[in-house]
Amino acid sequence: MAESHAVRGTVADGFEPVRDEFAAVAAAEDSDFAAQVVAYRHGERVVDLWTGPEITGDSLLGAFSASKGAAHLVVALLVQDGVLDLDRKVSHYWPEFAVEGKQDITLRELLSHRAGLVGADTGFTLDELADDRIVAERLGRQRPYWRPGSAFGYHALVISALSGEVVRRATGRTIQEHFAARVRDARAVDVHLGLPEDQESRFLSAQPAVATPGRAGGPAAPESGANSLSGIAFNRNHPQNPELWTLPNHRTVRAQGPASLGGVASARGLARMYAAAIGSPDGTAALLKPDTAAAFAQIHSIGHDLVTREQKAFGVGFHATSEVYPVLGQGAFGHSGAGGQQAFADPRNGLAYGYSRRRFPVPNGPAPENHRLIRALHAAADGRWTASSSDLARWIVVG
Amino acid sequence: MAESHAVRGTVADGFEPVRDEFAAVAAAEDSDFAAQVVAYRHGERVVDLWTGPEITGDSLLGAFSASKGAAHLVVALLVQDGVLDLDRKVSHYWPEFAVEGKQDITLRELLSHRAGLVGADTGFTLDELADDRIVAERLGRQRPYWRPGSAFGYHALVISALSGEVVRRATGRTIQEHFAARVRDARAVDVHLGLPEDQESRFLSAQPAVATPGRAGGPAAPESGANSLSGIAFNRNHPQNPELWTLPNHRTVRAQGPASLGGVASARGLARMYAAAIGSPDGTAALLKPDTAAAFAQIHSIGHDLVTREQKAFGVGFHATSEVYPVLGQGAFGHSGAGGQQAFADPRNGLAYGYSRRRFPVPNGPAPENHRLIRALHAAADGRWTASSSDLARWIVVG
Amino acid sequence: MAESHAVRGTVADGFEPVRDEFAAVAAAEDSDFAAQVVAYRHGERVVDLWTGPEITGDSLLGAFSASKGAAHLVVALLVQDGVLDLDRKVSHYWPEFAVEGKQDITLRELLSHRAGLVGADTGFTLDELADDRIVAERLGRQRPYWRPGSAFGYHALVISALSGEVVRRATGRTIQEHFAARVRDARAVDVHLGLPEDQESRFLSAQPAVATPGRAGGPAAPESGANSLSGIAFNRNHPQNPELWTLPNHRTVRAQGPASLGGVASARGLARMYAAAIGSPDGTAALLKPDTAAAFAQIHSIGHDLVTREQKAFGVGFHATSEVYPVLGQGAFGHSGAGGQQAFADPRNGLAYGYSRRRFPVPNGPAPENHRLIRALHAAADGRWTASSSDLARWIVVG
Repeated sequence: MAESHAVRGTVADGFEPVRDEFAAVAAAEDSDFAAQVVAYRHGERVVDLWTGPEITGDSLLGAFSASKGAAHLVVALLVQDGVLDLDRKVSHYWPEFAVEGKQDITLRELLSHRAGLVGADTGFTLDELADDRIVAERLGRQRPYWRPGSAFGYHALVISALSGEVVRRATGRTIQEHFAARVRDARAVDVHLGLPEDQESRFLSAQPAVATPGRAGGPAAPESGANSLSGIAFNRNHPQNPELWTLPNHRTVRAQGPASLGGVASARGLARMYAAAIGSPDGTAALLKPDTAAAFAQIHSIGHDLVTREQKAFGVGFHATSEVYPVLGQGAFGHSGAGGQQAFADPRNGLAYGYSRRRFPVPNGPAPENHRLIRALHAAADGRWTASSSDLARWIVVG
Repeated sequence: MAESHAVRGTVADGFEPVRDEFAAVAAAEDSDFAAQVVAYRHGERVVDLWTGPEITGDSLLGAFSASKGAAHLVVALLVQDGVLDLDRKVSHYWPEFAVEGKQDITLRELLSHRAGLVGADTGFTLDELADDRIVAERLGRQRPYWRPGSAFGYHALVISALSGEVVRRATGRTIQEHFAARVRDARAVDVHLGLPEDQESRFLSAQPAVATPGRAGGPAAPESGANSLSGIAFNRNHPQNPELWTLPNHRTVRAQGPASLGGVASARGLARMYAAAIGSPDGTAALLKPDTAAAFAQIHSIGHDLVTREQKAFGVGFHATSEVYPVLGQGAFGHSGAGGQQAFADPRNGLAYGYSRRRFPVPNGPAPENHRLIRALHAAADGRWTASSSDLARWIVVG
Repeated sequence: MAESHAVRGTVADGFEPVRDEFAAVAAAEDSDFAAQVVAYRHGERVVDLWTGPEITGDSLLGAFSASKGAAHLVVALLVQDGVLDLDRKVSHYWPEFAVEGKQDITLRELLSHRAGLVGADTGFTLDELADDRIVAERLGRQRPYWRPGSAFGYHALVISALSGEVVRRATGRTIQEHFAARVRDARAVDVHLGLPEDQESRFLSAQPAVATPGRAGGPAAPESGANSLSGIAFNRNHPQNPELWTLPNHRTVRAQGPASLGGVASARGLARMYAAAIGSPDGTAALLKPDTAAAFAQIHSIGHDLVTREQKAFGVGFHATSEVYPVLGQGAFGHSGAGGQQAFADPRNGLAYGYSRRRFPVPNGPAPENHRLIRALHAAADGRWTASSSDLARWIVVG
């Protein structure tokens, strides 16, 4: 194992298997592989690891869609406060939204990716994508791409611009401002929707995926056209569409922190954000009451996602994460990112988790190593699930 | 073929291929394989077979989830009588149910596995699982695990405790009492939700699955955690969760006959129950009018089941059985059991079927041999479907 | 390559790859393979090709379910005119429909294959299938096969008899009469719902599929029974069910042109019909306003189709064609046919397409060669999508 693959950092007693798994992940990657993984159990940080050149535990990486978790934590807080109501119509807060058949869409439907506003008919420039208000204004005028209520699809680059506009209309402050005040600063969470200039030195730029025959083993999607729904959702219908992996490398994106994709974070920050959401890493009260967490984790959209053309499961603004990692508890909620990120809270098991890496995986999306790391974490946290479990437990009961 | 594999019993003229298929099934199993299969056509018993040591045609075996078919036949009768209304809210009958966002859930939604009450946050002891009233009271207080209306999932151990509570509140009698009076005793159906002491001598205990490399060929579910939705639904979140296969081996389960899982039956009983539902095995009137049977067989929930994580299809309280066995007619309804049981009525083809076995299959659920037996039964009953059918008939029309 | 495989006709500059692909398709088929492919871009016919013995560019072939596209273009025109309202109940137009739980089904639900009237309990004779009024009257009396609102399934042989009855009740004229006046005659579209006697000489009879071991490589559906939902939808529950491929070979079918299956068309006609729908092949105005086209293309039913037992996506009366060919644009709409036909409009890419062949493919449904031809057409029309695109573009973004 090359020096660059050394795993640094600490784990609590009993969590050594997570370190071993992380070392095994790193050993199978290229020599420049750089990643961070952090986990909390019941408010205590039990895993704090990183590997690779240049990177430290404090390095900041592009969060990509894991940013949506930060944004929707704000929405959850505002619902908990009674400032927002999930069952109100979006147009109650944002009257201009009530056009083209969208007048009855509720905030709940919007946040569960059901509104059918996955992108713009004409696409966006980089500068437009970096500005949530421009995105919201453009989409607020559009017709939904499917009949509201009939289906759902991942609003990959725009969901939090839309929910952010609701927040701005209802409170007079942006979702970024709320996040900075109530989560980042109040709970010392190293996640940024808008990276201050003085933190720039900790940022490590994202790196492109390197496709090799051996790596291209994942499920290939059919080649979708630039004007297809997937193409529109990923802005491929715009002639100057920036490549996805480059987004956080633009200062305009980092500075404005568009809430769907432009966050910057350490894995420490991602894990601590979810630990603070459901528990008390420093003895402070959890940000979310159990009822609020349960309401946002509740599955709302499950089945065929019109954009990704895969089986997906969304709660309210978050992924229903245990649908992806069945070892997790019912009610787990979080959000992955296209650059390999994964971050979530699992209230039933008392876990919070953050993972980030510098180089895009192939295929992009939550990196496959998360499955290994999360299994190891769960096994370490819960003695009941070990290799010695009856093999029969592997068989699901269907009678 | 060892003596233990000899097939005993009788078939009507023309149904010899079912006996041959059953013999072939037995020959491929271990020497202690014990099973029963019975079928009716247009009210006449045309298949009555059993095989294995100890077992006879009158032996009683654990019915597991096939019990739900007995329970929901009672519900269908009460709806037919006008005592229950599927479109009434559950809370109309059971006011304490109207908490935690459940106030608008209808009986129809509950029976189609849409209420999101698949288990208890803290799990159940064996004694609790055996008592439908305790299960109902516990779940009546809970928040649904998903947003009512957004999804469905198999309420594996609890559905008939919930529907049973509605029956008890509406009529003053338990679902078990109704079943005994209106089905078991009135129609001589050898199915018991609560096995009388004097019938105990006919009971053969359930046997655990034997996993072997050769048998483990079915689709393995991802290893779901004890606190996952699947874990909760199968009570794996309780530290003293009894193994599923042992349930009918406890006298407390057999005696109380919890209506989701605790029935005891012969295959003769299961088949006769469905024959009586749609026809007249002894010249008596069918228990269900065609309209009632059609209403309960009508598909209500189809697609991704949140608990089993598989494609499933439910009618009202029953499986839409022809989704599993496409050779059957539209409108077939029944229920399988985790121990390999399968039982249903197929009104369009005039068929009723019951199958049970003593040893749990791998994976558990309706045993794979049901596919072979049901195809043979259908072919024998309907000369049009034979091996000489055009090969082209195997290709579905999709234009 | 035998003479019979020579490709005849013309392509516009830059569309030679479509001709090459068509030649490659033909070369892989039997010597009697006969097919037509035609495409428009922005109102200009850019592909006009045919191959095989007897056939010319003007030959007429059975359109099978591609007929539904013609029928529902009429419905779209009537909705655009304000004569029909998709959100009105079917029973508003057709009072006798309001029985057996169907009173609240809307025209929109009917057209998105949600009404549950996929066939008749007793099946149809050939003469009945050829007469839309008989089909409509029979089904108008029936109970839906699933709970309206809970699911959808392809109304393979009957959907346009049902929508046609609404048209007839609302306007006093049949869907066939509207089509002839407003589309066929007004826009010189060589598609016929009811083939005039004097056009008979151009008709080439349909030919049965030839199943060979090499060809039977597609996904085989489970063998569904004659009384299953699939069996009923394809009329296999009738003892004298005509084989599907023979339908257009009966003069009674061609003469009456039942709107679900009985159309007769050239590929020129099919492509021109969709070109006229969204553009102006001769400088005339598009038949449909963009809003109307978008409303009918909007996805309404997606997921498991109860009849075909496959993943399907329907708009209003049309297939959501880009779900089948992801290279196409969002909002593409059209309809395939069991005999291999495919036809659609793709407004975002300015394309219209028609394909037909004489011999049924194996499996039947839209022939697999459409994938190749459509990819070639799209690539020729849009220089951005070429083999030189980054391989990474093949991987879908899921983060």
